[in-house]
Amino acid sequence: MELIKGVRQGDRRSIARAITLIEEASGEAESLMEALYPHTGNAYIVGITGPPGAGKSTLLNRLIAHLRGEGLAVGVIAVDPTSPFSGGALLGDRVRMTEHALDEGVFIRSMGSRGQLGGLAAATQDAVRVLDAAGYDIILVETVGVGQTELTIMELADTVVLVLTPGAGDIVQVWKAGIMEIADLFLVNKADRDGARKLIADLEEMLDLAGKPAWRPPVIPAVATERRGIAELWQELQRHQAHLQESGEGAARRLRHLRRELRERMEHRIRRRLEGLLADPAFQRDLDRLHRREEVPHRLVRKWLASLLAGEGGESP
Amino acid sequence: MELIKGVRQGDRRSIARAITLIEEASGEAESLMEALYPHTGNAYIVGITGPPGAGKSTLLNRLIAHLRGEGLAVGVIAVDPTSPFSGGALLGDRVRMTEHALDEGVFIRSMGSRGQLGGLAAATQDAVRVLDAAGYDIILVETVGVGQTELTIMELADTVVLVLTPGAGDIVQVWKAGIMEIADLFLVNKADRDGARKLIADLEEMLDLAGKPAWRPPVIPAVATERRGIAELWQELQRHQAHLQESGEGAARRLRHLRRELRERMEHRIRRRLEGLLADPAFQRDLDRLHRREEVPHRLVRKWLASLLAGEGGESP
Repeated sequence: MELIKGVRQGDRRSIARAITLIEEASGEAESLMEALYPHTGNAYIVGITGPPGAGKSTLLNRLIAHLRGEGLAVGVIAVDPTSPFSGGALLGDRVRMTEHALDEGVFIRSMGSRGQLGGLAAATQDAVRVLDAAGYDIILVETVGVGQTELTIMELADTVVLVLTPGAGDIVQVWKAGIMEIADLFLVNKADRDGARKLIADLEEMLDLAGKPAWRPPVIPAVATERRGIAELWQELQRHQAHLQESGEGAARRLRHLRRELRERMEHRIRRRLEGLLADPAFQRDLDRLHRREEVPHRLVRKWLASLLAGEGGESP
Repeated sequence: MELIKGVRQGDRRSIARAITLIEEASGEAESLMEALYPHTGNAYIVGITGPPGAGKSTLLNRLIAHLRGEGLAVGVIAVDPTSPFSGGALLGDRVRMTEHALDEGVFIRSMGSRGQLGGLAAATQDAVRVLDAAGYDIILVETVGVGQTELTIMELADTVVLVLTPGAGDIVQVWKAGIMEIADLFLVNKADRDGARKLIADLEEMLDLAGKPAWRPPVIPAVATERRGIAELWQELQRHQAHLQESGEGAARRLRHLRRELRERMEHRIRRRLEGLLADPAFQRDLDRLHRREEVPHRLVRKWLASLLAGEGGESP
């Protein structure tokens, strides 16, 4: 397939086309992903999340510039589950990363919820793999909010950065959202503002309560607009990457992610099949027979489950 | 099977034993239900729900007495999803229906969440069918609260009665819980209290907003402790039963319920299989190979879905 070759060679049009196929849940996408998968696993995947208004776009811009200075090729997937749009449109509006638009070493793509038949998390995972197979050294996955979908998306990352700001809402809210547990690094942006010291102290206190884990998430003060804290962020990311490798947690984490991914993909397929079955006239006829007491529920359950899974077994990409 | 005969003859010990088998999700339960199912569909099934403190136990007691006076055999399943207990224990404590304990025409059973491997709603459905096959004319299914589980349980009823009281919380709360939509009758208990007139007016106003449906839920004032409103409740229940029959809505509703039941039973079985699969050492080995890039996700998804089928197809009751 021409497309596979294009992606592997880092051709930008091929990469964009591949991600579009994923978004459209095209049949082609599955065989494409099968061909690309063996060439993945090399990129360092960093998730960046936090409440809206935390200055993540500016931070991302500065981080990209810093990583380019280090000679790294950078891929970016910006995910907004609340937006139906994807592709270039959203980026132009929301994320002002145009300064990197002409840089061949940077590929930026936004993804919305449109047409994500396989689930947004699965689509994001596949898009990340496309960039991975295309040879990007580091892939930044940004989400807009801190909802359940965003949390699930973060579960594909090697390292998760939670961006907070003083005044962007109570720390307790973020705590409740369940995102604290998955954060490996805390970045306190707009650290020149009132309340930054308090926020940092609160975070450190919270981390004290967790005892002595193998990795204690660092709290990094930053002022992204002035490029302050960006070098420190990259330092800490590298330190976490080294920790992941040395402790074996990196491999364990990726294995857990794969396990969860397979489970979700199976569940999704079964759910789709089940919808089809419920619309099947033969199923409706059996239901009528059940209603007339000419059938019994448990036998029908067994019969239709067998047919459900038989169809699944015969499905080809 | 001796047990089937016992249930069909209305033997109380057999009925109790059958429901225990259902609760234990015993393998025997499935073949028992297959044998009993053809003899079901005759009882009138009434769901009674409402927030805690609405006086449902007293109401139930009075309603049972009234129905006995009409010469009807009454089965009662009291479901408490928040309690791990089932069987006789709970009833002695919570529901004071002992006045019917020696009456052969009344069978009362409580069910808790303990051991409900197949889901509490499915177990309740099976227990109701046991009473139906045993010849009870009317089966009352009571739930303690108005949570999601209770809502699901109510979906097995021909008629749903929502019990409210003045002062038992804002009507808006009940509205939000989504139970308003499934209520066929509103019973305002403790109607001699302050606020009863306001509650009834609020309910009627809300029902006005619904326009002109084929069935407008009546709002029945009652004082269960004084037996007031009980005869009216039974009258309205009969009126709804007649409406269900004449409009065809009764059969349509039962068909919808069967459809939902089959779907949930299938989903449950698949979920159980999937859990088993994730614990399978062979799956773990494939996961390791996937991690080493010797396998690709989509192929594994297809392979394990097919194995899921083989196991399910071969399963016997």
